Amino acid sequence: MRTIVINTGTELLLGEVLNTHLTFLARELFALGLRIDRQITVPDGPAIRSTLAETFGHADLVFVTGGLGPTTDDITRDAAAELLRLELRHDPDVMAIVTSRFSKFRVAVTQRVARQADIPEGAQVLPNNNGTAPGLYLRANLNPKVSSPHLFLLPGPPRELQPMFKEFVLPILSTLGLKEAVSERRTYRVTGMGESTVENLIGEKLLAIPGLELGYCARPGEVDVRLIGAGAALDQAEAIITAALGHFIFSRGDENLEEVIVKILTTRNETIATAESCTGGLLAHRITNIPGASAVFRAGYVAYANDSKITSLGVGARFLRENGAVSEATAHAMADGARERTSATYALATTGIAGPCGGTETKPVGTVYIALASEHADTLVRQFCFPVDRETFKQLASQTALNLLREQLL
Amino acid sequence: MRTIVINTGTELLLGEVLNTHLTFLARELFALGLRIDRQITVPDGPAIRSTLAETFGHADLVFVTGGLGPTTDDITRDAAAELLRLELRHDPDVMAIVTSRFSKFRVAVTQRVARQADIPEGAQVLPNNNGTAPGLYLRANLNPKVSSPHLFLLPGPPRELQPMFKEFVLPILSTLGLKEAVSERRTYRVTGMGESTVENLIGEKLLAIPGLELGYCARPGEVDVRLIGAGAALDQAEAIITAALGHFIFSRGDENLEEVIVKILTTRNETIATAESCTGGLLAHRITNIPGASAVFRAGYVAYANDSKITSLGVGARFLRENGAVSEATAHAMADGARERTSATYALATTGIAGPCGGTETKPVGTVYIALASEHADTLVRQFCFPVDRETFKQLASQTALNLLREQLL
Repeated sequence: MRTIVINTGTELLLGEVLNTHLTFLARELFALGLRIDRQITVPDGPAIRSTLAETFGHADLVFVTGGLGPTTDDITRDAAAELLRLELRHDPDVMAIVTSRFSKFRVAVTQRVARQADIPEGAQVLPNNNGTAPGLYLRANLNPKVSSPHLFLLPGPPRELQPMFKEFVLPILSTLGLKEAVSERRTYRVTGMGESTVENLIGEKLLAIPGLELGYCARPGEVDVRLIGAGAALDQAEAIITAALGHFIFSRGDENLEEVIVKILTTRNETIATAESCTGGLLAHRITNIPGASAVFRAGYVAYANDSKITSLGVGARFLRENGAVSEATAHAMADGARERTSATYALATTGIAGPCGGTETKPVGTVYIALASEHADTLVRQFCFPVDRETFKQLASQTALNLLREQLL
Repeated sequence: MRTIVINTGTELLLGEVLNTHLTFLARELFALGLRIDRQITVPDGPAIRSTLAETFGHADLVFVTGGLGPTTDDITRDAAAELLRLELRHDPDVMAIVTSRFSKFRVAVTQRVARQADIPEGAQVLPNNNGTAPGLYLRANLNPKVSSPHLFLLPGPPRELQPMFKEFVLPILSTLGLKEAVSERRTYRVTGMGESTVENLIGEKLLAIPGLELGYCARPGEVDVRLIGAGAALDQAEAIITAALGHFIFSRGDENLEEVIVKILTTRNETIATAESCTGGLLAHRITNIPGASAVFRAGYVAYANDSKITSLGVGARFLRENGAVSEATAHAMADGARERTSATYALATTGIAGPCGGTETKPVGTVYIALASEHADTLVRQFCFPVDRETFKQLASQTALNLLREQLL
């Protein structure tokens, strides 16, 4: 099945929004054994029609996102009907749903809005439970005189498209007789090691396995190794990866580092506190993003100004003067202070120079000390240097801190 | 100038990474008066060649990202040379740079890596200061026997592509005699008002202005209104927008809400502290993302467990029992406690139920109380309900809190 995704929207080509549809559709379709062969972004307006026309005869499955709304630029519905030479018929059932939604928001239904209830003859309506414009499914060769692919017209807003896809598109796809997926995907998420090191350790051995597709994806403080192939090749590859990367692998799926940690702490009935200077709350934010974090996260301190280090965490003024705010000793004292004040099992502390200002010759921008206090062991402090932009610095420092804890939990 | 962007990379079509290149290139090109007419994503491998071939005769400017690396799937360079019928020549200067970069990372230079120094005859090398693979510029009709567009081959990693574009591509584009940009873009960032309300207030009046292109972009807690047009139409539109939306507009450019606030506080020499329960550190994280935040941000408390509300912020145990952790009174006490303890000019506090668990009949998931304590005014508390997923909830609650402060700073 040759699959093409067409994303419509001038805002995409003006750089105003990221195309998250592609990511979503790719993952959903892969699970069915389908891969997207090509994705095209076009502006609102006539390019929608010509691009859709190009796919006829060159694709089996086409997904179009956007262009179903009420404005004059929203021409996806009309373009599809025209290419398939189908009449648009006003559907009173769809209209009733549109009207009721508008009345709920106390907005008047205009002529333009009514267009959303014009349905190409023979098309299947995909209900939109999170917006007004319904989606449409036009099966392959719906008009026997036109050779056309299976065509799914989906709404532009992700919070409308995603539930519609799961609830209404997936059941239709399951009836299309897609051949059983022979390939499976496995992902190994690695931290504490750079991309080239990971590649050096496993690359050549994995490339020698026939039928295995290998990919790397590097993010701040993380490398994902992706394998696609049949079960036997994957098992062979997994043995190599596990032997070479061992505990540097923190997840074999979609779980991120903070999820892994919250899960371990929950199981052990242990708790965590944070004392952040340079990460400025990101560490707490990441942990509290995880549902159920309230059972393990005791409290966080964002000690930015020097005197807040003193008052919140009990790091003395003279101590700070003598050691400096960005120092091994201060990181140590912050972690101990946070743990004592919260009675948490563990406390992580960060102090460093995120930049762009504040660096010195001995402590350049990017310097960071990370400390881990624990009920079970002496307080650890590690020094790192991440000379990158401010946001990446915070990301790297928080990732490294979480990994320090993960290693202690092993 | 018809402009096409081709993004190569199997990882994009597997949904592993978001395409940030399109956003970056769109914004950079718009500033030169260029708009991207079409963007195509193709997997690594032979589709790169066929898709590039399609653009010949149909585009004036083509940007290709990715496929310049050392692996067998990286065929962008070869495909371009083949289509233009140009020889690849090994460039010793480029090779010296590649070798020196590898030796810095103590990685051996393999045969494969050496391919990166193979340059199509007549192509201009775009140095890569943040990676090994150089970019390439092949001017239009470089081989007079082939009708070809201006072709820019750029590396895949954003941190390599972006600086290369700014340093080496922009100067080349400036020599191509692009006609002066007649259109200008203005953006108005609005908060405290939903998308449909914004549209109701300004939509019809703006659509009546000839030559004006109007767009909306809704994000959590924010609506951006985008105008494109000539100066006179924009001025006319701006008057309408300013009259209708007034102080709901927090920015007329790229500045986000936290930047606006840090800037105002810096100018006034005032400071802020945070006491977060349900936003779990996001408020502090957003403020500390802004360079220079250390001058205005005193300290943050992430009071997650009940007893941390007590110890850090001086909210009494009995008080909490009587009022509940998620209540107007507790939000009030948290804000006051944070301000007293840090001597900040302002303190923001959040307490609520992010979900998915923890809701009750009277206080459902999504309930949040936001308080603002101030040196200049009585402490304010506002109640909201954002019944959405956990991360969007945190985003909305932090946005609303920041806006509460912005309104007081007006």
